[in-house]
Amino acid sequence: MSKLKGNLIFGQSGGPTSVINASAAGVFIEALKHSDTIENVYGAHHGIAGILNEDFFLMNEEDSEELELLKYTPSSALGSVRYKLADPAKDDTDYKRMLEVFKKYNIRYFFYNGGNDSMDTVNKISQYMEEHGWEMRAMGVCKTIDNDLVGTDHCPGYGSAAKYVATTLTEVYQDATVYDSPQITVVEIMGRHAGWLAASAALARVAGFGPDLIYLPEVPFTVEQLYKDVDKVLEKKNKVIIAVSEGISDADGVFLAESIGAIEVDSFGHKQLSGTGAVVEDLLKERYDVKIRTLEFSLMQRAAAHLASATDIEEAFNCGAVAVNEAVNGKTGYMVGLKRNYDTAAYDVSYALIPLAEVANAEKAFPSEWINEEGNNVTDDYIDYALPLIQGETEMPKINGLPRFAKLKKVQGGNPTSYLDRA
Amino acid sequence: MSKLKGNLIFGQSGGPTSVINASAAGVFIEALKHSDTIENVYGAHHGIAGILNEDFFLMNEEDSEELELLKYTPSSALGSVRYKLADPAKDDTDYKRMLEVFKKYNIRYFFYNGGNDSMDTVNKISQYMEEHGWEMRAMGVCKTIDNDLVGTDHCPGYGSAAKYVATTLTEVYQDATVYDSPQITVVEIMGRHAGWLAASAALARVAGFGPDLIYLPEVPFTVEQLYKDVDKVLEKKNKVIIAVSEGISDADGVFLAESIGAIEVDSFGHKQLSGTGAVVEDLLKERYDVKIRTLEFSLMQRAAAHLASATDIEEAFNCGAVAVNEAVNGKTGYMVGLKRNYDTAAYDVSYALIPLAEVANAEKAFPSEWINEEGNNVTDDYIDYALPLIQGETEMPKINGLPRFAKLKKVQGGNPTSYLDRA
Repeated sequence: MSKLKGNLIFGQSGGPTSVINASAAGVFIEALKHSDTIENVYGAHHGIAGILNEDFFLMNEEDSEELELLKYTPSSALGSVRYKLADPAKDDTDYKRMLEVFKKYNIRYFFYNGGNDSMDTVNKISQYMEEHGWEMRAMGVCKTIDNDLVGTDHCPGYGSAAKYVATTLTEVYQDATVYDSPQITVVEIMGRHAGWLAASAALARVAGFGPDLIYLPEVPFTVEQLYKDVDKVLEKKNKVIIAVSEGISDADGVFLAESIGAIEVDSFGHKQLSGTGAVVEDLLKERYDVKIRTLEFSLMQRAAAHLASATDIEEAFNCGAVAVNEAVNGKTGYMVGLKRNYDTAAYDVSYALIPLAEVANAEKAFPSEWINEEGNNVTDDYIDYALPLIQGETEMPKINGLPRFAKLKKVQGGNPTSYLDRA
Repeated sequence: MSKLKGNLIFGQSGGPTSVINASAAGVFIEALKHSDTIENVYGAHHGIAGILNEDFFLMNEEDSEELELLKYTPSSALGSVRYKLADPAKDDTDYKRMLEVFKKYNIRYFFYNGGNDSMDTVNKISQYMEEHGWEMRAMGVCKTIDNDLVGTDHCPGYGSAAKYVATTLTEVYQDATVYDSPQITVVEIMGRHAGWLAASAALARVAGFGPDLIYLPEVPFTVEQLYKDVDKVLEKKNKVIIAVSEGISDADGVFLAESIGAIEVDSFGHKQLSGTGAVVEDLLKERYDVKIRTLEFSLMQRAAAHLASATDIEEAFNCGAVAVNEAVNGKTGYMVGLKRNYDTAAYDVSYALIPLAEVANAEKAFPSEWINEEGNNVTDDYIDYALPLIQGETEMPKINGLPRFAKLKKVQGGNPTSYLDRA
């Protein structure tokens, strides 16, 4: 079989993680090895927007050492985007434009790194190009701290965020229990609809410092239950540590955070939640006359590359490299994810191709069988699942005691236009 | 000169740091070497309260490996306290009690780890004991993330907190600038009266990712200046990163968090004093129609031992060890601090004894000559001062990918009473 020759473009989308650039490194470093098939390797500036705007960098110009450093550089080095493509059946303007750009630059390989929204984007583009006779290989590379993609055992990005959450909790626990007086500490953890990341707080109990209570979006939240749970912990000791997902909501699915403050809505129609911890604090103040402190792990939980898991970095890198190899070998329309062999005692993963249509816009909730009976913590089965994902320390280099991130030259490889008004 | 024989007690006080236990390790490990002079080494449970309550642990019973691990264990392993002793001229009840306990347990060495309040405590106790004929050696060991103690070049605890702030800013910077759309990110940093820790945000610029604006408590804060500063940054680029000290206040010294705008009514009708960062965010929202995100480094900045500076750990340990040595050699009434030799190119510190009376209740503000003309950032002279303090990485051991903190047996060495009602 003759290989499809042409150029490659890679984009990063959605919320950053500590290892999304490790996947980029995997794509770039592997793609540059296939120079017989792939001539130019482009990195889209701000994801899909960069393609539409003909704004992309020629990665062939980058130093290989700097591409290696992408493994230790958090967030999205090429810039991310939250622009949502329309349904092509209703409005195919952007798709037409993309086909025009693909033709102009002979883009035959399109890789996109993101969560389920991004997989939907790749899927739509892939289908459109096929329908319009433009032969190409389109592949998704999964990433999300939310760990909510279907078809994959777990998502690159999750292990590092979980390691941040668990490590920080072991440390904060020491601080939150240091005085003799009673104290309730509330920790707000990201996760709009799925409780995977909030659940990772439980990993701290492996070190002996887990939270007393964990509230996930998968369990309808009630004030009565909160009070009952906290009463029970306070009967035994005078310190309570509570991990709450930002996405906890009532039986009707109304976010707790919606009860106060402004809720911002992004271009995907997602509600931007923040302040759930503060609402829980207010509820607690209503009943308990003790010191209450609320912490938000905020951007740190998805950007703290200095605490990235080596396992996660390696897998994120490999997902990118596998995507290139599979595409060069003719595969298209898949997301590269992880498959775990649960029959071995040692942690054992391989890389799997999951049809994009299966992944697009679906969400994998935290399994109900891993939630305890009271609905306020997670079971050891979850620990068995998640503990391998946080193993290993990053080899992030430091200069002057501070991280040394990748410095990309970002040589323009396109011809930027203002197709999209991005102001 | 014959050495004063007897027992030793050590207590930890005030807000935790990442390395307050490193000083404890220094005191304990050094004291246990002097068994000819010091028989029992006690660790007070919750500082001064532990002494008043005869509640203290016999550190001689601890495994030496665990005492070593205290170097990597954040917060105060013995428990902290915020109990303030009265002026003995007005009420000497607690002092009488302390003398009673010191006599009962033949305490001849008293060491206390803390900030300026704690140094005041040691000073008062030291004077009282001298006046009442109880020969003893009383020494303070300085610690505070605030770096606001006089007489010492810097304080153990500061370097690690500064390393956390600077490192986290380099990472958060990547995340806060990832989208193409304008964004203002506000980071709230601890420091009620002194801007030292907020200033450490500037260290991130050594890595290329410093904040655009830094507001310190030492510069009176005005909304007009904030708007002027942000306008100016937004003229040049569409991302603004602002570091604010929690203690910024107006020309009359009224905290921003206390000012009119700070009072919020929560969903229960309670008046709430929200965080300084949140107030700045509200002020910005009034003028700028862009995405604004506020982060609080909260307890993490003083508990993140995984990011402790090796320099800080070593100095904290040595301060404790030096206190023991100097006391055994007859010194009393001093705080052990750090003296820096600025005549050498390489970082060079030695340990200095500062009379407690000089340190007690005094605060060292951030130097005005290190604040830029506009009052919204710090100069490179500060960088030269602070950069050496964040050098070196911790050797914190990890198990299962998580910190392995010291596990103390905490064998009771006293006879706990309820002298203080600590409920």
